[in-house]
Amino acid sequence: MHAVYIGGVGMTKFGKDARPLVELFKQAAGEALGGATPSDGIDAVYIGVMNCEEFIGESNIASQTIDALGFAGTPALRVETASSAGAAALFTGFQAIASECYRRVLVLAGEKMTHLSTSTTTRVLAEVIDQEERLCGATMPALAAMITEKYRRKYHLSHSRLQNMLCAVAMKNHLNGAQNPLAQFQHGITRDAYLNSKFVATPLRLYDCAPITDGAAAVVLTCDKTDLRITGIGQGTGPLSLRDRETFTSFPATLAAAARAYQMAGVGPKDIDFAEVHDAFTPFEIITTEDLGFFPAGKGGEAVLDGKTALDGVLPINPSGGLKARGHPVGASGLAQVVEACKRLKGDIASKRSPKRGLTQSTGGLATNNFVTILERTDAPPAQKLAAPALPPAATTQRRKLSTSRVSEEGVIETFTTLYVTPDGFLPPLALALVRDRYGSLLMAQGEDDTQLKIGQEVFLRRVDGVCFFTVKSQIQKVQEAFMKLFRRKEAMPSKDNRGGDQS
Amino acid sequence: MHAVYIGGVGMTKFGKDARPLVELFKQAAGEALGGATPSDGIDAVYIGVMNCEEFIGESNIASQTIDALGFAGTPALRVETASSAGAAALFTGFQAIASECYRRVLVLAGEKMTHLSTSTTTRVLAEVIDQEERLCGATMPALAAMITEKYRRKYHLSHSRLQNMLCAVAMKNHLNGAQNPLAQFQHGITRDAYLNSKFVATPLRLYDCAPITDGAAAVVLTCDKTDLRITGIGQGTGPLSLRDRETFTSFPATLAAAARAYQMAGVGPKDIDFAEVHDAFTPFEIITTEDLGFFPAGKGGEAVLDGKTALDGVLPINPSGGLKARGHPVGASGLAQVVEACKRLKGDIASKRSPKRGLTQSTGGLATNNFVTILERTDAPPAQKLAAPALPPAATTQRRKLSTSRVSEEGVIETFTTLYVTPDGFLPPLALALVRDRYGSLLMAQGEDDTQLKIGQEVFLRRVDGVCFFTVKSQIQKVQEAFMKLFRRKEAMPSKDNRGGDQS
Repeated sequence: MHAVYIGGVGMTKFGKDARPLVELFKQAAGEALGGATPSDGIDAVYIGVMNCEEFIGESNIASQTIDALGFAGTPALRVETASSAGAAALFTGFQAIASECYRRVLVLAGEKMTHLSTSTTTRVLAEVIDQEERLCGATMPALAAMITEKYRRKYHLSHSRLQNMLCAVAMKNHLNGAQNPLAQFQHGITRDAYLNSKFVATPLRLYDCAPITDGAAAVVLTCDKTDLRITGIGQGTGPLSLRDRETFTSFPATLAAAARAYQMAGVGPKDIDFAEVHDAFTPFEIITTEDLGFFPAGKGGEAVLDGKTALDGVLPINPSGGLKARGHPVGASGLAQVVEACKRLKGDIASKRSPKRGLTQSTGGLATNNFVTILERTDAPPAQKLAAPALPPAATTQRRKLSTSRVSEEGVIETFTTLYVTPDGFLPPLALALVRDRYGSLLMAQGEDDTQLKIGQEVFLRRVDGVCFFTVKSQIQKVQEAFMKLFRRKEAMPSKDNRGGDQS
Repeated sequence: MHAVYIGGVGMTKFGKDARPLVELFKQAAGEALGGATPSDGIDAVYIGVMNCEEFIGESNIASQTIDALGFAGTPALRVETASSAGAAALFTGFQAIASECYRRVLVLAGEKMTHLSTSTTTRVLAEVIDQEERLCGATMPALAAMITEKYRRKYHLSHSRLQNMLCAVAMKNHLNGAQNPLAQFQHGITRDAYLNSKFVATPLRLYDCAPITDGAAAVVLTCDKTDLRITGIGQGTGPLSLRDRETFTSFPATLAAAARAYQMAGVGPKDIDFAEVHDAFTPFEIITTEDLGFFPAGKGGEAVLDGKTALDGVLPINPSGGLKARGHPVGASGLAQVVEACKRLKGDIASKRSPKRGLTQSTGGLATNNFVTILERTDAPPAQKLAAPALPPAATTQRRKLSTSRVSEEGVIETFTTLYVTPDGFLPPLALALVRDRYGSLLMAQGEDDTQLKIGQEVFLRRVDGVCFFTVKSQIQKVQEAFMKLFRRKEAMPSKDNRGGDQS
């Protein structure tokens, strides 16, 4: 496999940008090419865009872009893996150079989102999740919130302890973003501001979610040696729906991508100097730093509180501000992370230490299609502490069709959220719960009232038009039920009197 | 570069298929894998889909597919280049094996279209063309028709001669399709049926256009030697809009893709035994066989009439029935061609000759993103007649923004069509013309009446809300104009009398 080097990087300022997507690409490409004519020795262009069809009503974006760049003729194609499309485009560009098909390629990634209403954007973004979960009103934040609640319970965190952790991630990333001239938010946030921000889906607040953003990023990959090289790159996928998952507090797609990337680079988590990870939701940064092997499972939140992941910590996470503060033009983010990491490694960004090895991690959908990339300065010292995590065993999930499988009339809440920003057709607050029914199957259900929910609560279930609804069993219902059970057992017991009665 | 072999192929029957897209993928994948479990040694999946976002309202299709196949964990990504997406997915899969990143990959491509109305499908398909041309009401068939009229004029073909050629392509491909159990149309068509089919956009009739289709195809690529190998693969792009083109009767994207594929394979057009080409419109088959170097420019139509491209001709073109008769699930077609070619080369399809080397050509959009793939049996004789066409010079088109450039008030028709199947908001018949204005710029304009049009006609132009309208100059207007010109010249001439008058 031929070595793949970074030939240049570029990026627009993220935020609200009135220009068309192809103009954003033009700017980012121009910077990455460093003034050289685009057609000057670029053999192909790989473009990551998540959903130009619905965000801007355009398809054939590869041809549109190559045309706008003014070098029709050059091969160009679009790559898509939901919100990790930018990382996917980098990976295909990497393979193009590694295969020696091409000597120099331009990787672009971008998205235009801010011109749409939040409800439209939420609907388009929700298309990446499982159809049957969507039918209940589930959105990306809703499912992320359910994962967060599960994480809180698994690691025995109090509500306020979890809140402190999430707040710490948000504050750290905003603080970092304030030093990044290309970030959407260039200001720190206070703890009060965090606590005053509204709930999107409990326990996630507005300040736990990445914003809606326009932006584009560009990376030139080349087979000619430069001072920066991609030494490892890996991809992994995971089950689409929440109800098909065996684990909620760790993402198999990240584990697989990381194992592949570490193995290719011949390094382990301890060799990484800093990382840009996919913090579309603050808890995802915590989970991801655990999945990447930086911290033990359940210890990622503590690491943030201890300042370990701060800009001057032992392992800075999202020094650029992350998706949270830099902004999240969905298709662009996976490549923007690489642009930021390259700038840091090249020393374009002033830092006390001179990092030699950076890692980027991008998440597609609800962690269904993730990427990990390892970037190294060519003068990096050899890896010291090789302890790469092993590739997790392949999931053997068989997708269960809720609509065709049996559903019992009762179940237990596995995790839940109350959604305050609902998709069109659903009124807030909307209670949603992942319920394990009596047959052991998980299913997504919508609450019939706004009862206080908690994990482990028993619920009644009913199905209307393919959508499951749940009601929490009250204390009285539970007593009644216990009594009825006892009564039925008594009735079912064969007694002399009964038998006699039957005979008469 | 590591050699890339075909490990298996599969394909659904094309046509109307009620199953969801992922189910089509499952069937095609199952066949290509020959009964082996999908996760059995497949390192990654590359998926070509053109527009699942708008056709089926789903995004994140790579994760959805990997999930439905039952092997979450395996890397999967979606590749898109409009209607050549299937070929693009094959190309990225090829690079994955060639780079030794992976040893065995599954390439899938598919589309679901028949559940939508023709007008919705037409609108979605039209998104691939230039935005400003779309504003005039232009659709894919409209632009293809304009190219056809230009071809007719360039090669001095009478209307009936052109019609005979197009009819011959349609009849040949339907005849071939009748022998293909997986084709959408399994019947030949008569000359009368062709002539009785309605105009979609003059001179193109319904039988000149590929149908709307559901279907999926699958190809397993492997680094382990098999009896079939991809020896050449190439991609090329071309200007998006018709008005930015220097040539209309040849596609630079095909020329570039073919030059690259021939060069990689070390063969020339004369070494090819048969080809599957992108006949979404019958004239495109003719143009493409010329661009591929099979026939001289302007001679492709004659070759069809002479039977050279028939199943028993010297160079069978579209022996499977082509897009015309096999059907055209847009994202799938580029890969379905490869599946068909592989079956023919492997001898799964009975044929008098035993072809050793086949070529497939796929067209994205209005020939803006094209691919050429060369497949060889490993027992193929060495290439005899190496005469690969050279790579065309890179186009240096700078996209002209109609909305910002000057438009004169007059122009000359460069080519035209009358559109009978119009997009929503436009009433048929709709006259459309590509007009060269007095400044030499080409622009798309909508006819204000349904005058008989021809190339070279002079027209008046006016602009309303960014859309150009044209009216053909009448004979009287031309005489009036000539007179006015003469009169003005006389008036402008300085004469003693005038000067005297001025001074008084």
